[in-house]
Amino acid sequence: MIDEIHKPLKAICDAVPGALGATVMGFDGVPVDSYEHREPDGETDVGALLIEYSNLLGQVKNSAQMFAAGDLEEFSIRSENLTAVIRPLNEEFFLALALCSPLHAGKGRYLLRLHAPPLAEFLG
Amino acid sequence: MIDEIHKPLKAICDAVPGALGATVMGFDGVPVDSYEHREPDGETDVGALLIEYSNLLGQVKNSAQMFAAGDLEEFSIRSENLTAVIRPLNEEFFLALALCSPLHAGKGRYLLRLHAPPLAEFLG
Repeated sequence: MIDEIHKPLKAICDAVPGALGATVMGFDGVPVDSYEHREPDGETDVGALLIEYSNLLGQVKNSAQMFAAGDLEEFSIRSENLTAVIRPLNEEFFLALALCSPLHAGKGRYLLRLHAPPLAEFLG
Repeated sequence: MIDEIHKPLKAICDAVPGALGATVMGFDGVPVDSYEHREPDGETDVGALLIEYSNLLGQVKNSAQMFAAGDLEEFSIRSENLTAVIRPLNEEFFLALALCSPLHAGKGRYLLRLHAPPLAEFLG
């Protein structure tokens, strides 16, 4: 556990109703640190899903740059039982939040935006 | 141009400030109908980017189902110069909205949700 990473992950989850957990992960799918806030209701394997999404994230990043849409700032996926909001921190790492409902995804987006710069600085 | 598809695409773009265009597209990247609201400011090739994203969308859909997150409901990608909100209509088609800024993406999300059921019924 790395305090400089774990504390903001916990702060984000504590502030967003419906948060299941947050993580800082490499684009290669290797987590740097994770905070599990509570168990998902169903059988969703949040960790495994985020590793899967990390693969896609690299592709989205490249597509956006290729078609001159600029740098990728945020990526969010809403499924029936899980909403994930993902924000690249730098070329290597991203910050992700998993929620059991999309209701407070807006607040989640705001908090990721807020915590991203100091996390990027710590990792950079 | 198919009236039953073109009209809702235009209605969505007219109602959302910053809308660049909307499209109904197959997961294979073939557009059914598109409405171009206005030119993007930069060099972004919105059509080509959406075709690229349609590839990813299929993968996101499969991942979400595989890890028991349920059916994919919405997918959004925010890049520096373009925000895209995408909503699957059925197993074959999705509805997408491109915006030049993320400011009104929430309104866009709401309107896609509103127009998706009649579009899905028409296509089904």
